[in-house]
Parts: sequence; C-alpha cells; structure tokens
Amino acid sequence: MTQLELAREGTISPQMEAVALKEGLEAEFIRQGIVAGTIVIPANIKHANLTPCGIGQGLRTKVNANIGTSSDFGNIDTELEKLRVATDAGTDSVMDLSTGGDISAIRRAIIASSSLPIGTVPIYQAGIEAVERHGAIIKITPDEMFSVIEEHARDGVDFLTVHCGVTQSAIARLKEQGRVADVVSRGGAFLIGWILYNEAENPLFEQYDRLLEIARDYDLTLSLGDGMRPGCLADATDRPQVEELLVAGELVDRARRAGVQVMVEGPGHLPLDHIEANVKLEKAICKGAPFYVLGPLVTDTAAGYDHITGAIGGAIAAAAGADFLCYVTPAEHLSLPDPEDVRQGVIATRIAAHAADIAKGVKGAEDWDKRMSVARKKLDWEEQAKLSLDPQQSHQVHLRHASSGTACSMCGQFCAMALVEKYLGISATRC
Amino acid sequence: MTQLELAREGTISPQMEAVALKEGLEAEFIRQGIVAGTIVIPANIKHANLTPCGIGQGLRTKVNANIGTSSDFGNIDTELEKLRVATDAGTDSVMDLSTGGDISAIRRAIIASSSLPIGTVPIYQAGIEAVERHGAIIKITPDEMFSVIEEHARDGVDFLTVHCGVTQSAIARLKEQGRVADVVSRGGAFLIGWILYNEAENPLFEQYDRLLEIARDYDLTLSLGDGMRPGCLADATDRPQVEELLVAGELVDRARRAGVQVMVEGPGHLPLDHIEANVKLEKAICKGAPFYVLGPLVTDTAAGYDHITGAIGGAIAAAAGADFLCYVTPAEHLSLPDPEDVRQGVIATRIAAHAADIAKGVKGAEDWDKRMSVARKKLDWEEQAKLSLDPQQSHQVHLRHASSGTACSMCGQFCAMALVEKYLGISATRC
Repeated sequence: MTQLELAREGTISPQMEAVALKEGLEAEFIRQGIVAGTIVIPANIKHANLTPCGIGQGLRTKVNANIGTSSDFGNIDTELEKLRVATDAGTDSVMDLSTGGDISAIRRAIIASSSLPIGTVPIYQAGIEAVERHGAIIKITPDEMFSVIEEHARDGVDFLTVHCGVTQSAIARLKEQGRVADVVSRGGAFLIGWILYNEAENPLFEQYDRLLEIARDYDLTLSLGDGMRPGCLADATDRPQVEELLVAGELVDRARRAGVQVMVEGPGHLPLDHIEANVKLEKAICKGAPFYVLGPLVTDTAAGYDHITGAIGGAIAAAAGADFLCYVTPAEHLSLPDPEDVRQGVIATRIAAHAADIAKGVKGAEDWDKRMSVARKKLDWEEQAKLSLDPQQSHQVHLRHASSGTACSMCGQFCAMALVEKYLGISATRC
Repeated sequence: MTQLELAREGTISPQMEAVALKEGLEAEFIRQGIVAGTIVIPANIKHANLTPCGIGQGLRTKVNANIGTSSDFGNIDTELEKLRVATDAGTDSVMDLSTGGDISAIRRAIIASSSLPIGTVPIYQAGIEAVERHGAIIKITPDEMFSVIEEHARDGVDFLTVHCGVTQSAIARLKEQGRVADVVSRGGAFLIGWILYNEAENPLFEQYDRLLEIARDYDLTLSLGDGMRPGCLADATDRPQVEELLVAGELVDRARRAGVQVMVEGPGHLPLDHIEANVKLEKAICKGAPFYVLGPLVTDTAAGYDHITGAIGGAIAAAAGADFLCYVTPAEHLSLPDPEDVRQGVIATRIAAHAADIAKGVKGAEDWDKRMSVARKKLDWEEQAKLSLDPQQSHQVHLRHASSGTACSMCGQFCAMALVEKYLGISATRC
C-alpha cells in the first residue's frame, strides 16, 4: 500500500512517524495532510536506506538539488561528489538529471549512496536511448517510455517528473501564444517533438492510468512536470503555461483516486509580482497539491548569479505557499555546475526556504533566528557559528580579519551592541 | 539654491536634466518629483566631479555600497580599492563609514576619486574625536558634533545620515520594549549613550534647524538615520522603531519647509512578511519621502551569505516601493568586508533592485530582460554575456566547461530551446 492508501485507512506508517518527529509535529497531522493530498512523502518501497522526508503544507519548506551528467560530461565520480556536497550543504532531496555516460549506472550509484529522497526525469533516458536505438528522440515508442519508467521505479527512485500536461492542446496554445523563449524544459521539448512528429497525443497523458499503476506499485510520488513553463520573464503566466496547469489539476485528482501521491511543478522565470499569483493559482487549480517550483528566477539578466535570483523568487514563492524549492546554481544558463556551484545553490535556496518558513510560521523557524540573535548580542562567536546556516563559512569569514576586542573587525571598539549594553545597563546611575 | 528650491520656482537644473536623461524620463517629471519630495538628487555644491543621480519614486531603484575603515583596519588604499570595485560592479552611490585611521583624509580622497554621490555618517567621526579629546564618546559637545557635520559638508559629502530620531522618548520606548538585540546602529548607540549620560535631548533633534541650515547651504541631502532599527527579526516593527519613524515623518516636513532634500532610512532585519508593511508605513508617515533600506535581512541565521539574505529582502522592499537599497556584503556580522565582498554585495543588490524595477514597471527594466531572452533563445553567447548584469562573470562561467555544440555544457545536444526550435519550425511538414 502507498502512504496515501495507508493514511486513508487510518494507519500511521513509520514514514509518517519519522516525518512528524523531524518536523516537531503530531504524526496525525502528517497523516491527515497525506489524506488531503497537501503532504507527500516520496518513499519508493525499493529505496532501502531512505530517511523519509515530508513535503507540503505546514511542513518546513524543502530544498532540492539537481545533479547529473550531460552529453558533454559523463563522469560518475563527479556526480557522486556533487551528491556529497549537496547533502553536506543541507539539501532535502536530490534529482539525478543525467543525460550522458551510463545513465542507469549513475542513477543506481546515487540511490545506493543516498538516504535522501531521489528524483529523476525518465523521459531523458528514454529519449537518449531512442537516439541510440532509432536515430532520433521522436522515434521512441510509448512502450519504450514506460519501460524506462519501470526501470526507474524498480531502481528505487522516490519521485518522478512526468510531463503529462504537454498535450496537443498545450502545443496548440503554445503556437497561438507566440513566445520569446518557446520551451526550455528538456522533457517538454522531447515530448513536443514526439507529439508533432507522430501526430499523436502524449503517451504519458494518454496512458496516464498505466503510469499510475507503476507509481502505485512502488509508491512512487508523481511530480507533474511543467514542460510549458516560461523560459523568460516575457513568457510568464501565459496561456500554454496555464493550459498545462489545468491538465495537471485534473491529473492530480486522478492520481489521488488511484492512491498515488502527487505534486505539481511550477516556474521557472517569473517577474517578482507574478509569483504569489502563480502559487495561489496552483493551489486552487490542483486542490492544494504540494507545489514544487524551480527558482523562480525574478530576472533573466543575472547569468552567473542565478542562485541569488532564484533565492529571491524562491523565498517569495515559499512564503506564498510553495512547498518545495528546486535550487538554481550560479552556473545555470551557462554551464554544467561544478560541486562548488552545487554548494552555493543549496545554501542560497536554504536561505530562501528558511526566510519563507519564518513568514509562514513553520514550527521552530522563528526560534532558530532568536537563538542566533541572542548569541549575536552576547558577542558569542562560537555559538553564532554553530547556529549559522553554514557554520564553517561563518567561522572562516569571522576569523578572516583579527579584531582587537570582543566585537568583530567591522565595528571594532565601536560595536553598537556592546556600547548600548554598557549605556543602558548603567543608565540608572549614569554612564 | 538647493535642487528643491530650484524645482519649486519652476527651474529645471542641469542636475535634473542629467537625471532625466539617465532614466529616460522627462526632466519635468524629475522636477515635479523633487517638488513633491518623492525624488531627491544628492548633490553637494562642493562635489565638483559629481555625476548626478536621482533617488525616488518612478526612478530606477538605486544601490549603495558601504565602505570605510574600522578601528582595527585603517588603510586608505584598501578603501580606495573598494571604491573602485564598487564602482566597477555598478553601485549608484558609496557611503564612507570610516571609523579608523585618518578619517578626514580618507573621506576627502574618496570624494575626490568618485563621480558617484558620496554619503557619510558624521557622528562616527565626532564620537571618535570625542574619545581622543575627552576620553569618551559621550563627552562630546553639541558644538563639536555640528563642527564635524560642517566639515563633511565643506568636503562635498552629498548625503548625510543623521540619527535625529533617537530621542529621549525613543529611548523610553526602547526600555519599555525589552528587545533581544537592543540597538545595532552605531550612530544610534553613540547618541543613546550621549543622551543617557548627559540627561539631555539629542542635539541633532533639538538643534535640527541648525542642521537644516548647513544642509541648505551645501544642498546636502539629509538621510534620517534609523538608530532604533531592529537588529534581529525578533525586534522587527516594534515600538521604538515606529516611534523613531514618527519623529522622522515630522522632520521630513520641516526639512521640506526649509528647502532641504530629505530621505528616510529603514531596516535592517525584518521577517519577509513584514517588509511590505514597513515600506507602506514609511511612505504614509513620511509623505512619500524616498525610503533607503539596509537589506532588509530576512533571516538572522545566514552569516557569511548576508548579501543573499539582503537581496531577498531588498527585492521585496523595492518592489513594494523602497527607492534605495543599501547593500549587505557576505562579511556582514562577521568581519570588515574585503574588496571581493564589496563586489559580491553590489552585484547581489543590483539583482534585487532590477528584479523590483521590473515589478514596479520602471522604464526600460522589462526590456533589458527581453533582449537577454532573445539572445538566449538564439544561443548567442556573446550577446548574452554583453547583456548580463556582470558580463565578465557570465562569460567566464560559460567557458568553464567546453561544449560540443552551440548549446552550453549543461544540456549539450539535448538543449530544449534548440530542439523545440527545430520541431516547431518544421511541424507543418512533419519533423
């Protein structure tokens, strides 16, 4: 039985218990969220060493790190290094988006090495194998697509991005729209090519029940991909994007009926003032399904710094209700990320998630900042480093320049907190 | 005559012309904004080589970089290097917050080397000279305070932070409040000490007319400092902070009556969901005076990455109407910033400002992103680098990993934009 089926029959599973413990919440709250479909626990029954992680309303906002090879760089060790770096930096999950080298071997190595939930986009591998087998992505057969999906399920992947909403009607809306950047989703691009070439409906949509069956068998959480997500601010919140979201809403209903856990993916590139509307729209259309956003990036112009652009958008999205933030690294739009890019991406996105958690009133979020502030006021540098989101970095930057006193080298003897402490403390009897 | 006085009598000054040209707006719009007090042009008549810069409603959100020595590090060359780095990274103004070394010499060197508007906080120098002269900051005389202010004015400082709102009643509210971090403003701390020790009112408040006279003589723009700004999220939007804002509102009225340009400073540390309220409050209380915020930082826990924390808060603040963002560097709370921290701080804050400008509908903001997106869709890497906020970084990250095709090394041959271009382009006749 899936977590959703267990929750429905009133069972609190060990996974629900573990999530409740980590979040400091009642297990019954988790169970009810799963029943309502507002919480998912991606936990493939084949992922043996998994530490369960809950995603959804009322829980800490989660962070995902994308790793994986490309057709230009296929080294498995580099990807395992990125997995380690992302884990150490505090990511909540990892997606393996490999499109180069021995894709199956890389995925299996990542799953075996990680207790974090792992996600994949099987259409990538399916498309690449189609190139090898038939000479073109678009010549893949529906059976071949599903065979790759089954392979990922068997390997223990916890959540799958499936672009079921890239339908013929979404493509018609895309053509009518006239976009600046057309489509920037790789999975979306593969399927658009397939649909146009074969003059047939998207197999992931047409045979959605087949997908649900596999998902149910392994308790795979479906993540309904946004193949039509805007690839630039000028294309944000347009008709193809919303068309796909409407389909996603219907597919959420069907997944829930089938006992399959489901979440929904979202943009992408959005002007800052579109973000809240996008979150509210998803929550309304998809009946509270967890919303998993990529960034969103609030400008197209910050190439080389898109972890910051994504942190701005992610914080606003999560504060408005987004549940799961996919990181963006400084290398986005430019290059395959290095391990250091991965680290920067995770940290920036954790800042965004935590800032949002304070605004959302997530349990314990505000308290962390208060403890940090008490340590800061005391000029207790050891405690400050310990309470920092990245203790090592905090420690290193502090020690970069020696200070002559107990304050840091920025204010030295003129530290406001130290001065005011002194003045207020003795103001009754005069300074 | 000050820019405000000129504007009132219907004159469009060369400074207003220059600002209008840079912003792509009518000079009459700038003049009217100055009359209304919603726009300021900090331009000390003694700052000979100044390129005027407008700050306020309807204009591009501006970015300030703080540099300056501390009691631990007093090297003038390092600060001039930071000035160069900040200018190259695209800051709109620089504040010299020096508290170590030969403070007057450093300030003069910075003003002489910069065509950007320069700001200072004269109470720092006044306090430090009081330590040298009398053995304690709190023993400074009001005349000594004003003498330093006059010196800064004569040197050509364009805008002055003056903590006039740190009054006896604000201190009473501070004591009643019971804060976690008390006061983190250095100027605020100096003045609180002075007020408590001397059992007298803040000279910058009590002799505000004297301050206005100096400001009017040099067309110094006053920046009403927030000595009571919250130093942590737990203290945000509390009674001492709002008390000081109420006083600032009254002082804005008086400055305008005296023909003096004025803006108002704001937090600091704010939970994400407090930011918009803080901006609206300032705009209402201070009758639309330009709002100059520090960050705001949306969590206390990200020491070592506060440029990102500040970019999140700054983007939200500016989108809500804040006009001027003071950067925060990665070294904030830990150490005096190095030139590389300065660069990171400026870039992060420029991202925030630009993201907000798109949301606010500032002229030309959206168009920049669109041009970038067109270049991205064309896979025109040279044009993308040119249009990037930091062209050099964009170029370098792109070249870090060679790609086998025209796309970057992240997606390689499976670049969505290239694939969809092909599929959509030939879909009429089949792929």
